[in-house]
Amino acid sequence: MIDIAILGFGVIGGGVAGVLEANGGHIAERLGTGIRIKYILDQREFPGTPYAGLVVHDIGVILSDPDVSVVVEAMGGVHPAAEYTAAAIECGKSVVTSNKAVVADRGDVLLAAARRRGVRYLFEASVGGGIPIIRPMTDDLASNRIESVRGILNGTTNFVLSRMEEGVPYADALDEARELGYAERDPSADVGGFDSARKIVILAALAFGKLIPIEKISIRGIDAVTPEELAEAKRNGCRIKLVAETSLTADGRIYAAVAPEAVPPTSLFYSVGGVFNAVSVTGNMLGEAVFYGRGAGREATAGAVVADIIDAAERRFAAPPALMWTRARDEDLSPVK
Amino acid sequence: MIDIAILGFGVIGGGVAGVLEANGGHIAERLGTGIRIKYILDQREFPGTPYAGLVVHDIGVILSDPDVSVVVEAMGGVHPAAEYTAAAIECGKSVVTSNKAVVADRGDVLLAAARRRGVRYLFEASVGGGIPIIRPMTDDLASNRIESVRGILNGTTNFVLSRMEEGVPYADALDEARELGYAERDPSADVGGFDSARKIVILAALAFGKLIPIEKISIRGIDAVTPEELAEAKRNGCRIKLVAETSLTADGRIYAAVAPEAVPPTSLFYSVGGVFNAVSVTGNMLGEAVFYGRGAGREATAGAVVADIIDAAERRFAAPPALMWTRARDEDLSPVK
Repeated sequence: MIDIAILGFGVIGGGVAGVLEANGGHIAERLGTGIRIKYILDQREFPGTPYAGLVVHDIGVILSDPDVSVVVEAMGGVHPAAEYTAAAIECGKSVVTSNKAVVADRGDVLLAAARRRGVRYLFEASVGGGIPIIRPMTDDLASNRIESVRGILNGTTNFVLSRMEEGVPYADALDEARELGYAERDPSADVGGFDSARKIVILAALAFGKLIPIEKISIRGIDAVTPEELAEAKRNGCRIKLVAETSLTADGRIYAAVAPEAVPPTSLFYSVGGVFNAVSVTGNMLGEAVFYGRGAGREATAGAVVADIIDAAERRFAAPPALMWTRARDEDLSPVK
Repeated sequence: MIDIAILGFGVIGGGVAGVLEANGGHIAERLGTGIRIKYILDQREFPGTPYAGLVVHDIGVILSDPDVSVVVEAMGGVHPAAEYTAAAIECGKSVVTSNKAVVADRGDVLLAAARRRGVRYLFEASVGGGIPIIRPMTDDLASNRIESVRGILNGTTNFVLSRMEEGVPYADALDEARELGYAERDPSADVGGFDSARKIVILAALAFGKLIPIEKISIRGIDAVTPEELAEAKRNGCRIKLVAETSLTADGRIYAAVAPEAVPPTSLFYSVGGVFNAVSVTGNMLGEAVFYGRGAGREATAGAVVADIIDAAERRFAAPPALMWTRARDEDLSPVK
């Protein structure tokens, strides 16, 4: 039996329980053993649910239980998620997360700690929701030098832009996204491009081994896109998409930016509508590959978290050297492509 | 040092040497050690190349050398590739291949043998060339029950159909594909749909654990597509694509088929032109994910082979239980969706 603890029982944490409930038999067949939720760390109690008996309010209970081999961090925000992650790793537990803020902020330190401790730190769900992208870049493209990564990485903004193209005003489209549960109550991280920026920080680190401080990323959100820009794009047969991008310049520095871009119909990105995401990766052997799917949503994202739990259970040794990141310095970065 | 042997030094086998030459330093950084070609099994001698000294004509030399931990089977055809693969596995060597004919014909037996012997049998390059699809389905979608897989899996036919849409007659488009090196001298396996069928056999086995004998697959190639059908599709705003498909029916049986299909512009497949491939996988948690890229080509495909070599070197233990396939019986199959 693989005993796990879930930190934060919100959309993703609860979703993980849901995936294990729905597909537990299937997963146990593969693993040769089941995955059992032993603890849920949350401020709430969830009375009347099957999970009430698992709730603890003290991370120490989880850290000191040697049965717990994998910790799912689904708290959101950097604090105390990062501290709890570091503590779990120090206690010899693998940590699996969907929390892009933590990975983008201190993935370098946490991966190094996991490596030292001989455990895994996995974050497939932090970019592109349920779309396989982190592990394909790490494993399938291991034989390639990555040259560039481009993506539509935020479903909320993509949905809003799609609606604006249909003539819905920005504010109304955003309200609609909120009503449908796509946008946060405070959607500024989405529309301002910061969510996409965190994700491109992670993809750039995977591609080039350097973790770029987010304040060094050039960011333009969709909040500045005017109806006139949309109309002009339409006249040219294009669609406006919020594109996050990173590439290596000729002199070996890293360019990374987030900005609205007029995408022509010849691009696969043109057809990426609503809350879907797409990531295009160019390698020196592969050429271009594109990964497309649901960039958000409880089940898709939780499914990616559970795939990481399975991976952590099957490959308990430290991450491959490919996942050694160093902090990017100013001279590693380029303001232009 | 990881010593490997390459069986068959044609397009893919030679491509593997090319990838190791181009990206060897990058790969060694990740592995912590280099990959060295110790032997090349081929009938030719390659005089005047750096590989001349590595050529052997007797598989026994490779099988009996304990230094060789990974064998790359890039011979093509079922015989003697399958026998050499089985022998290498019996000798405790992992085998990596791009040879879809062998995987589709006896992947079940070879995976079971690899499992028994505690080595790997890997075939990322057998479907979709350089596109990551086998490992994402195995690892990233491990938490999902796969419901269906649909793909444009043959670049040659996709190229020919693209040209026919532009008004080029079938025979001329095929000649062009031959001249560009996309089509084999005998393209009947491509245009007849058999190449796509082998690939959907492999994807169905990954999805449902059953290896379907190829003669049980309903196959219609593009050789029967008329200019009238193309014109009608165009009138309806569609494009004809050769689509390979497998899904689980409501009563739990497997449907698998290859046939030309009119694809509407709302489908991502609509934009898959020329020699590109795309694979759409639907999981019960993920929903739909699409993988797109170069379905053929020396460097892209060889890059996928080298990624498998890296995987075999890093994870030398047996394949996960997910890769236990049994031979599909007639009662496992459904003639309709």
